[in-house]
Amino acid sequence: MRADSWGQLVTELILSDDELGLFTDLYELTMLQAYWAESMHASAVFSLFFRKPPTNRNFMLACGQEHVAHLVLQVRFPRQQLDRLATVGMFQDEFLRWLEGFRFTGEILAMPEGTPVFPHEPLLEVRAPVAEAQLLETLIMNHVTTETVLASKAARVALAADERPVMDFGMRRMHGADAALRGVRAYRVGGIGATSNVLGSLRHGLPASGTMAHSFIQAHPDETDAFRTYGQLYPGTTLLVDTYDTLAAVDKVIALVRDEGLEIGAIRLDSGDLREFSLTARERLDAAGLRDIKIVVSGGLDEWIIQELLDGDAPIDSFGVGTEMGASVDSPSLDLAYKLTEYDGKPRLKNAPGKQLHPGPKQVWRFTDINGRYSHDEITGRAETRDGEPLLEPVIREGAPVRGEPDTGEAKDRAWAAIARFPERMRELEQLETPYPVRFSDALEQLRQDTIRNLG
Amino acid sequence: MRADSWGQLVTELILSDDELGLFTDLYELTMLQAYWAESMHASAVFSLFFRKPPTNRNFMLACGQEHVAHLVLQVRFPRQQLDRLATVGMFQDEFLRWLEGFRFTGEILAMPEGTPVFPHEPLLEVRAPVAEAQLLETLIMNHVTTETVLASKAARVALAADERPVMDFGMRRMHGADAALRGVRAYRVGGIGATSNVLGSLRHGLPASGTMAHSFIQAHPDETDAFRTYGQLYPGTTLLVDTYDTLAAVDKVIALVRDEGLEIGAIRLDSGDLREFSLTARERLDAAGLRDIKIVVSGGLDEWIIQELLDGDAPIDSFGVGTEMGASVDSPSLDLAYKLTEYDGKPRLKNAPGKQLHPGPKQVWRFTDINGRYSHDEITGRAETRDGEPLLEPVIREGAPVRGEPDTGEAKDRAWAAIARFPERMRELEQLETPYPVRFSDALEQLRQDTIRNLG
Repeated sequence: MRADSWGQLVTELILSDDELGLFTDLYELTMLQAYWAESMHASAVFSLFFRKPPTNRNFMLACGQEHVAHLVLQVRFPRQQLDRLATVGMFQDEFLRWLEGFRFTGEILAMPEGTPVFPHEPLLEVRAPVAEAQLLETLIMNHVTTETVLASKAARVALAADERPVMDFGMRRMHGADAALRGVRAYRVGGIGATSNVLGSLRHGLPASGTMAHSFIQAHPDETDAFRTYGQLYPGTTLLVDTYDTLAAVDKVIALVRDEGLEIGAIRLDSGDLREFSLTARERLDAAGLRDIKIVVSGGLDEWIIQELLDGDAPIDSFGVGTEMGASVDSPSLDLAYKLTEYDGKPRLKNAPGKQLHPGPKQVWRFTDINGRYSHDEITGRAETRDGEPLLEPVIREGAPVRGEPDTGEAKDRAWAAIARFPERMRELEQLETPYPVRFSDALEQLRQDTIRNLG
Repeated sequence: MRADSWGQLVTELILSDDELGLFTDLYELTMLQAYWAESMHASAVFSLFFRKPPTNRNFMLACGQEHVAHLVLQVRFPRQQLDRLATVGMFQDEFLRWLEGFRFTGEILAMPEGTPVFPHEPLLEVRAPVAEAQLLETLIMNHVTTETVLASKAARVALAADERPVMDFGMRRMHGADAALRGVRAYRVGGIGATSNVLGSLRHGLPASGTMAHSFIQAHPDETDAFRTYGQLYPGTTLLVDTYDTLAAVDKVIALVRDEGLEIGAIRLDSGDLREFSLTARERLDAAGLRDIKIVVSGGLDEWIIQELLDGDAPIDSFGVGTEMGASVDSPSLDLAYKLTEYDGKPRLKNAPGKQLHPGPKQVWRFTDINGRYSHDEITGRAETRDGEPLLEPVIREGAPVRGEPDTGEAKDRAWAAIARFPERMRELEQLETPYPVRFSDALEQLRQDTIRNLG
């Protein structure tokens, strides 16, 4: 094996900007060739939304949609990539030459990152020549699904932790490098306080945090030696106490602090009955006068377990959450759809069983009651106006950004200000029997009926 | 917004080879600094395995472990990345200089890609100076989790389809770009026949396949026009028939083929009662003498729905499977662990509640009965020998590959030859009450007891 073949192997982890155009489903490109062959260049409107409320979710945090709106401006088909595409054997040379000139020239409206969103509400709408808008479907959906699923799960974990800090420990169990890295972005929006993910932290500005692994204890002949070394090197660190005998290890930590003056910030419990261990550990630490040493727990946590621990008055100061949040295990997918609603100025719909669609470009309005609480949303045609807060804002116009890249810190503030304004029951973990009210405007319903009537 | 800030945005989708070292949990690096500070450079053995059988899985297909074994040879810490790492504020300059010389010099054994694997069986074992082996934990786990989860789900879908072709339509709903791309690699091993994912197809050699979207039909004033255009451009293509009125669309397809000689390979049903629609569509196609036109179905499919359709004699020729396979929705995670089992020649374990560990380097043996069927596995110490098939093979020795990169086609053949040799009940979708038998050797059990007795 030669070094250049290793290089190829690393390359396969990478989505280079040259390859963004090929990050797509084949049918987008075959449809593009058909639009091109038919000279169908008129403007189309596509709308990104989900139909069903995902399992266990009373709201979703829309995340990634502004980010990807900027990203689509980078989609190109350099010659070298077109040569690869030609090997699929379905594309005419002249069409490939046309693709070489591809760039997005249209308009994108999107909800600001971190906006709570409900079924049927567009998170993003594209208006562009049909080929341009069509091509972007896969990239936009993959990008927004990932961040929205992860941010929404994170928000539930943060709600359950009830203002105690939550650390993301999920990197190792997430679906690939991109999810792990962009997950940190989504987690920041979702209210997570820190991450173990070094590169994710550096990229997305969530503080890096970490403790120690069992292997560090195991590699030392003596648990106390391992604790001493780590505590001396990292004053204020967190020591992992469940490698052999949890409560014996707590006593070793107490001895090191009391007898040797070691500076320890916290202990971490990673297995066993976390409530019982935290209660006993807290008692022993307090009895030794070490009230400032905090208790961190981890190990298979999700929002339900966190809620149960806190309901049981477990004296826990912060939580490390990995797998369950990292793969959003209870609800790992979102039935996001990207649908044509207008072509060449005329409203369009589909009428497949169970997958009805309202035609035309839209706006989403969020209404506030006299107490400043959100009361309901209305989805209207884009041209309608309402006395509520319009959620879709221009992000790209004529193929250029209207404003700068979204700031993740602002997105977090936006998300949590909004979450606080919903009715109390929306912040419960249990799925509501009566979801937050979202209605379509009368004009949209009428347009839908009229469009169906005009269907061939 | 300037062009260079867009460049930054694209960069954030990318894991560059320069950044591989930073794709890690913070505690790996703080532990490394502690090992370095203590001059702990002795050899350690780490073992990668999962404890619990994942929901609904009678076996997992080990996938990604050989691939990542090659990848770790690329892990470096270039100066520029160390400058970023320094901003975390926990690392001494001298340690960062030491990291600049990091490269993997150890040994990796792994199961060949596509090997069926069971709880407690090591998929991969590393022996290297403790810092080297420790650092790789996060990268190895993230990589192997992703491909193993996706390949294992794919194998179930392929088993349910009972030799009918399955196409991967999941790209848009998968967790990020890396999962979508490496997912194609895993799907190939798992027995999927084609993918809609263009870049994934080009990278991993699974044929690209695709049909058309509803938007293509909607953009045309007339459904028949859309069908005609597509069929003329792509002879033998698949037409999507559920945009407005499914059976009416089937009749339109029949008319186009019969009256105009359009070459159509298949129709695709994407909504509604797929069994009923497929039966009626088949009847109408057959009545028109169009027995060669196949029926493809898609729309929320998973292995259970596919099995039910085929049990109900639905005349379906192939399946397009997206979300459920793409996020492995019923079982999206794997409790993979990477644990120290030996340091400086001495066996190590941990003894945390519910997370017991057997010490020492290991081998996994697969035994065959007199009929050539797999009967059971045994996990032994590395030095033990058995009359079965040893599953762990050397992949890296002294920091260099023993053999070339794994071939995904071979991995697929290996996987399906092995699946065929298991008892029939292993190929059922239902989770077995009595799992496939895996035992630890007596010597390993004895070593575990001895090691516990010697714990400080």
